[in-house]
Amino acid sequence: MALRGKLLVGQSGGPTAVINASLAGVIEEAGRHGEIKGIYGAVNGVVGLLQEEMVDLRAESEGQIALLPNTPSAALGSCRKKLSEADYARLLAIFQAHNIRYFLYLGGNDSADTSHRIGLLAQAAAWEMRVMGVPKTVDNDLAFTDHCPGYGSVARFSALAARDAGLDSFAMRTVDTVKIIETMGRNAGWITASTALAREEPGDSPHLICLPERAFDADRLLAGITRQVDRGHGCVVAVCEGLRDAEGKALVEFKHAVGMDSFGHRQLGGVGDYLVALIAERLGIKARFDKAGTIQRVFGLAQSEVDVAEAKLVAAAAVRSACEGVTDHMVTLERVSQCPYRCEVGLAPLEKVAHAERPLPDEFINEEGNDITPAFLDYARPLIGGPLPRYARLELRRVTKLLEAS
Amino acid sequence: MALRGKLLVGQSGGPTAVINASLAGVIEEAGRHGEIKGIYGAVNGVVGLLQEEMVDLRAESEGQIALLPNTPSAALGSCRKKLSEADYARLLAIFQAHNIRYFLYLGGNDSADTSHRIGLLAQAAAWEMRVMGVPKTVDNDLAFTDHCPGYGSVARFSALAARDAGLDSFAMRTVDTVKIIETMGRNAGWITASTALAREEPGDSPHLICLPERAFDADRLLAGITRQVDRGHGCVVAVCEGLRDAEGKALVEFKHAVGMDSFGHRQLGGVGDYLVALIAERLGIKARFDKAGTIQRVFGLAQSEVDVAEAKLVAAAAVRSACEGVTDHMVTLERVSQCPYRCEVGLAPLEKVAHAERPLPDEFINEEGNDITPAFLDYARPLIGGPLPRYARLELRRVTKLLEAS
Repeated sequence: MALRGKLLVGQSGGPTAVINASLAGVIEEAGRHGEIKGIYGAVNGVVGLLQEEMVDLRAESEGQIALLPNTPSAALGSCRKKLSEADYARLLAIFQAHNIRYFLYLGGNDSADTSHRIGLLAQAAAWEMRVMGVPKTVDNDLAFTDHCPGYGSVARFSALAARDAGLDSFAMRTVDTVKIIETMGRNAGWITASTALAREEPGDSPHLICLPERAFDADRLLAGITRQVDRGHGCVVAVCEGLRDAEGKALVEFKHAVGMDSFGHRQLGGVGDYLVALIAERLGIKARFDKAGTIQRVFGLAQSEVDVAEAKLVAAAAVRSACEGVTDHMVTLERVSQCPYRCEVGLAPLEKVAHAERPLPDEFINEEGNDITPAFLDYARPLIGGPLPRYARLELRRVTKLLEAS
Repeated sequence: MALRGKLLVGQSGGPTAVINASLAGVIEEAGRHGEIKGIYGAVNGVVGLLQEEMVDLRAESEGQIALLPNTPSAALGSCRKKLSEADYARLLAIFQAHNIRYFLYLGGNDSADTSHRIGLLAQAAAWEMRVMGVPKTVDNDLAFTDHCPGYGSVARFSALAARDAGLDSFAMRTVDTVKIIETMGRNAGWITASTALAREEPGDSPHLICLPERAFDADRLLAGITRQVDRGHGCVVAVCEGLRDAEGKALVEFKHAVGMDSFGHRQLGGVGDYLVALIAERLGIKARFDKAGTIQRVFGLAQSEVDVAEAKLVAAAAVRSACEGVTDHMVTLERVSQCPYRCEVGLAPLEKVAHAERPLPDEFINEEGNDITPAFLDYARPLIGGPLPRYARLELRRVTKLLEAS
């Protein structure tokens, strides 16, 4: 028999360009199921929910819902919060008071952990409720899924940014010789790797890629930079914010922590800043860095239409699965065909998702550890959507010199 | 009588999203004038030219030229170079050897200075040559012109970035309370101001704007941040890289200079980094910063079609003026109608352009010095091209709480 009651959806973790497409997918699909008697949204994920802060998503106009898939960031508000035992009990009371029978949480592995525990608690209290995870993370580091909605769009942005900033570096090769592009990604190099997706010809930007899956080796990086600089075309290095040394220690810890000892005598800033200083010190070369920061993960113009469609797909599948009786699972994407690219949805237990991280696998990293492989390109290209805008490549045929060299 | 000979075009200074549109404009217009017997491009501006490095632009295919206007950065290569007396003499020899009678230099005020001196030298040597400047700078700080090609596109990027990163901050208001968006602009706040162009409603990002036209006052900024943070919606601050204190001293000098004393004990990095540390130290609040760096000035997706069209317009006008006998001038844009927006071309002497800078005028800055005025929006809105993508604004109607507050 169908489980009658309300559906509650929340957004969690860092925003993406398409997490609202998932929200729209939930709302649309939930509207097709008569047993779902109301669609609530949690304000700021579990943080607002603990204060009983919920919104009525059926009160939103159709026009606004239609705009949602192309609206970046998390319209309900998000959070990062590890819940206490008391918090979980409070959530259960709220679910019961509002007759919430479907709980969908859009997020990464921390959110999967939260959702899993919520499901366990409801079960222990004999509160019948279906709990489903909807994958969302720009980091693309969830296991059991081919990729995560959110990644295709940040990858599209990163590919375009590396191409354009690379053209900028090439044009300015007589002024700024080295450019660092610092990407997000914490423990996984998926975003950094995606900077290679707009390359068309040998020598295209980026010229080196530093991934957190390989121990940072300053000497090797500097040697690579020197080689590229000597070619005279400028050098673009894509680096992950989460680089680590051979001992696994973060290369750069962000020291602007509240309560740090003394402003002005603080330690290093980000990785980009660090490398600019290292290159100046060791190579005597002027470098600069670009760090798009949060802009990269939510830049609406760079939305991948494949990403938008899949964000809706996994969300709708989560609602359908819950209505069919599934609980305690996250919807996954399974690539069933590479050419033409096609994904279908699958399921993975929330508990397994919660406790796994997926770094960039070895077959996607070249032997020197400073670039990606063609296999990565095959994997990632379909995710960033339609073709990138075509640019001119002038032949630049040299005019014969008539004078003596000066 | 028409002056017969070759035309040489060069690109100078920082790249933009539309300086290649100007290059295309030069090539197209030059093709219409029979007296122009060849179209050469200087490789890396005057730096390559000093080595007699030139390319034959008539050898490029029509298909590639057609792609140029939408290809960001400087396809010929650019430079920043102050020439010596010997350099100028060398340039004259090259012009004479190749029968160059038209010299067009796309750039800002340094390039105008170079062009002016080249013109004087040619005149002194009785080498008849028409020298024209074509305005180009994302900084928008050239005098005698309503605005500069290149600005409309960086302004479109900045408006979109501030809107999207603002949505990100709003969504993450329970995690990262303050976000700094560091923009380019050196001595002028035009780019920083443009972050306001996507605002639609009170409270939209950015919440504070720090311009180099006003002395940086840490206490006032921190008070403004505190006020906004207390509203509970997150706080986005757009800051110019070139902030100065009351004595006119750059707030932050970029100390990664080659030969600095000791890596690791260097001083401050960029303004964004500085403010993140200041906010942590003085307010005990966690902040972060986004610094799109060179990405902002060349991001192809954010090209303004008005900017593209005007970049071609001023370039074609420079060729036409030169053919009509004008020399030693830069083409300017004059706004002849605000609604509908329309600009016509004019002329300004290179020497005057070279020695003037145009900061953001007082009427574009609010009284508190921490925001722009509606007059700035009226000025800048037409420059960023068509309407920005429309986003959803959910009503977020709250569900009545049923439980006691916890």
